[in-house]
Amino acid sequence: MALQGKKLINNPDDVVTEFIEGLVETYPGLQYLDGFPEIKVVLRADAVGGAYDKVAVISGGGSGHEPAHAGFVGPGMLTAAVSGDVFASPPVDSILAAIRAVTGTMGCLLIIKNYTGDRLNFGLAAEQAKSEGYKIEMVIVGDDCALPPPRGIAGRRGLAGTILVHKVAGAAADAGLSLADVAAEAKHASEAVGTMGVALSVCTLPGQVTSDRLGPEQIELGLGIHGEPGAAVVELQTVDVVVEHVLKQILSQETQYLPITRGSNAVLLINGLGATPVMELMIAARKAVPELQLEYGIAVDRVYTGTFMTSLDMAGLSITIMRSDENILQRLDAPTKAPAWPVGSEGNRPPAKFPVPVPPSPSMKDDEILSERQELSKQGCMLEAAIEAAAKELIDLKDNLNDWDSKVGDGDCGTTMYRGATAILEDMKTRYHMNDAAGTVNEIGSTIRKVMGGTSGILG
Amino acid sequence: MALQGKKLINNPDDVVTEFIEGLVETYPGLQYLDGFPEIKVVLRADAVGGAYDKVAVISGGGSGHEPAHAGFVGPGMLTAAVSGDVFASPPVDSILAAIRAVTGTMGCLLIIKNYTGDRLNFGLAAEQAKSEGYKIEMVIVGDDCALPPPRGIAGRRGLAGTILVHKVAGAAADAGLSLADVAAEAKHASEAVGTMGVALSVCTLPGQVTSDRLGPEQIELGLGIHGEPGAAVVELQTVDVVVEHVLKQILSQETQYLPITRGSNAVLLINGLGATPVMELMIAARKAVPELQLEYGIAVDRVYTGTFMTSLDMAGLSITIMRSDENILQRLDAPTKAPAWPVGSEGNRPPAKFPVPVPPSPSMKDDEILSERQELSKQGCMLEAAIEAAAKELIDLKDNLNDWDSKVGDGDCGTTMYRGATAILEDMKTRYHMNDAAGTVNEIGSTIRKVMGGTSGILG
Repeated sequence: MALQGKKLINNPDDVVTEFIEGLVETYPGLQYLDGFPEIKVVLRADAVGGAYDKVAVISGGGSGHEPAHAGFVGPGMLTAAVSGDVFASPPVDSILAAIRAVTGTMGCLLIIKNYTGDRLNFGLAAEQAKSEGYKIEMVIVGDDCALPPPRGIAGRRGLAGTILVHKVAGAAADAGLSLADVAAEAKHASEAVGTMGVALSVCTLPGQVTSDRLGPEQIELGLGIHGEPGAAVVELQTVDVVVEHVLKQILSQETQYLPITRGSNAVLLINGLGATPVMELMIAARKAVPELQLEYGIAVDRVYTGTFMTSLDMAGLSITIMRSDENILQRLDAPTKAPAWPVGSEGNRPPAKFPVPVPPSPSMKDDEILSERQELSKQGCMLEAAIEAAAKELIDLKDNLNDWDSKVGDGDCGTTMYRGATAILEDMKTRYHMNDAAGTVNEIGSTIRKVMGGTSGILG
Repeated sequence: MALQGKKLINNPDDVVTEFIEGLVETYPGLQYLDGFPEIKVVLRADAVGGAYDKVAVISGGGSGHEPAHAGFVGPGMLTAAVSGDVFASPPVDSILAAIRAVTGTMGCLLIIKNYTGDRLNFGLAAEQAKSEGYKIEMVIVGDDCALPPPRGIAGRRGLAGTILVHKVAGAAADAGLSLADVAAEAKHASEAVGTMGVALSVCTLPGQVTSDRLGPEQIELGLGIHGEPGAAVVELQTVDVVVEHVLKQILSQETQYLPITRGSNAVLLINGLGATPVMELMIAARKAVPELQLEYGIAVDRVYTGTFMTSLDMAGLSITIMRSDENILQRLDAPTKAPAWPVGSEGNRPPAKFPVPVPPSPSMKDDEILSERQELSKQGCMLEAAIEAAAKELIDLKDNLNDWDSKVGDGDCGTTMYRGATAILEDMKTRYHMNDAAGTVNEIGSTIRKVMGGTSGILG
């Protein structure tokens, strides 16, 4: 079944330029260089014209990783981003155009992910720019922890950890540091970061057919961000098991990829790969934080959960850990206007929970538990039997009700009824005055209001 | 093939509480009420305890719409969000708990989407809270533009436009306005907003099987956010055609849902439904802005593109238009720390494009066009024929190369080669000095650097 991937696009050849046009429509602080289709460069509208008085920080690479890198352009982060075509390194001329557009007397730092194409194209552009009189430094990020060393001449791939390096470098540049100091901070950050990904689906390139490489119950571990096959294919697990496995790989004592030991501090980045709902990313974050703290003895200073570096429409996520210190935290917490950098992750955490407020009125007794059950009257026994039979019938009907509801609604009617019936069976023995039929009906209403929600709950 | 939807979750019954735990791990400004599993309330850590001195703004509803609504809790937006189970309205007691936790003497505005369950549960909670002495107002949002009126007793559904109403109300409350004034601004906003969605896939509830309702080449127009079937199923179109259709429906003169005419100002919200890559959302934004301005004579003041109100893992998007005026713009631009509200959309737009900088050195002549073609020598003719044959061969091999590359890499080798070969055929006639073989090789290199990118470009 060779079907083209279903996408909301126009001509597959135009996805990158059209993405940039939409991005710039959305964020008035961004502009792009008027050199489509070859030159695809997004830059800070306030940093162009050669008069920029801080170190310019430029990143880029192949497209298909949106919002990276163009979404991280803004005061306090990247000065410009250079996009290639989907999964293809940008040509030298467009990198040069970006350097020329935003680099002032303080010079320019290029941050790139460790791929052969990017190293060559950015490297050649850097040499050319130097010959034109620009001060240029380059930092290469290779944060992949999926495969054991040695990885041969290519080395470790650059993944979502690059975003944290952008932030550290961008904040250092914004603070007015010299090119050498900004480059040193970026290099330090790049050596303290590790990433590994897990995919539920393979990504589909625009205009191409969807691969059936991954079975309906399989997931891929340790993938790249260009649809390269992962290090391993395994059966679908709960996210808790997946997170445990990924953290173990990243923090492996065998590979020693990360300079993190018990007692270290770190920040955590949970990154969606393109088609992953926020709900699932947050569920992963919920597992990763206590796992790091309790199993590895690592204090988690910050958590960044969202969609940062994608593989087109891939479902799945990557986890990144960066060892943090006071300086790195200051850089990560520094304000930025870059649209795709998360808001609200900075600062220390108060207790997560707050007690449910006590109702002001003393008449509320929904939670009252009968101190002693009276003996049931004959009528009470009949009522109990009737309620029990009805509740059990609803429990048995759960799947059928869900199925029928999915034809006309959202398919959760059976689950909602099941929840109510189960709670009634529970409360019946401890909370209901069964000898008083009218009172019992009210008490059933109270149980339902408490647990069922939905429309049925309130009608109940 | 009744397969469970592939999700990174644990127990399907725990997705909402685990989402909230992860959310609160990520954002230190948020807390949740300690009443799991029944009470699922996220609140501002700095607004609890009954001493909050501004109008509290509370929203909520069924879960499965993440980041809505809990992701919009923060200074300047929501004070608390009440979550039900997936696609089920929250029970009265949890709404009451939220009201009690954050409402001070200024009172509380409840903003809800127009669904029967939410109207009943929030309505009953409001009455109960009033009986406890709280000042409460309620505003209901029904922004759906997919179906023509009359919609019967249920009325129009609440969709992503609700997020803009949150922002207006939250900013008005933050400015210190009274409950009556905050409610009036929210109501005004709710009457100025319209939304319509388009889906590429049906969403799958946690633990349930994936529906095969939508064929591999079909999309659904005018859907709800609970997996309800859309108003129409059509063949997959380009996103430009889809956007045109959706805007036409929202702005229909027949339904007159929106008080917007030629000469009006408006803001635009492009909302991903859960599994939609940022790239596709931006491509839709790129079409919608000029369409509104040129076809409908509507000035677009702001564009918000991102993932705001989802349907679990649904692929697709919704478009929301809200008529804007000076006051609404001021509310939308007001600062907020709510994590899911977009950064960087405020302010007026400069020109989108910036000219490509001219290289400083006069020796660069990549773009030189030969003023007059010299007559080709015999050797020049042979070289031309050879280049032409090689380029055409590469063009013919595009699909095969992509296919082979997808086995070992990212499947774009053929496309990259095609791009280079096409450009060489073009430049050959106008830019190459074919009688000078060595010069021609350099000129080919220049063409390749300009258009190919990737690793092959730089190696070429």
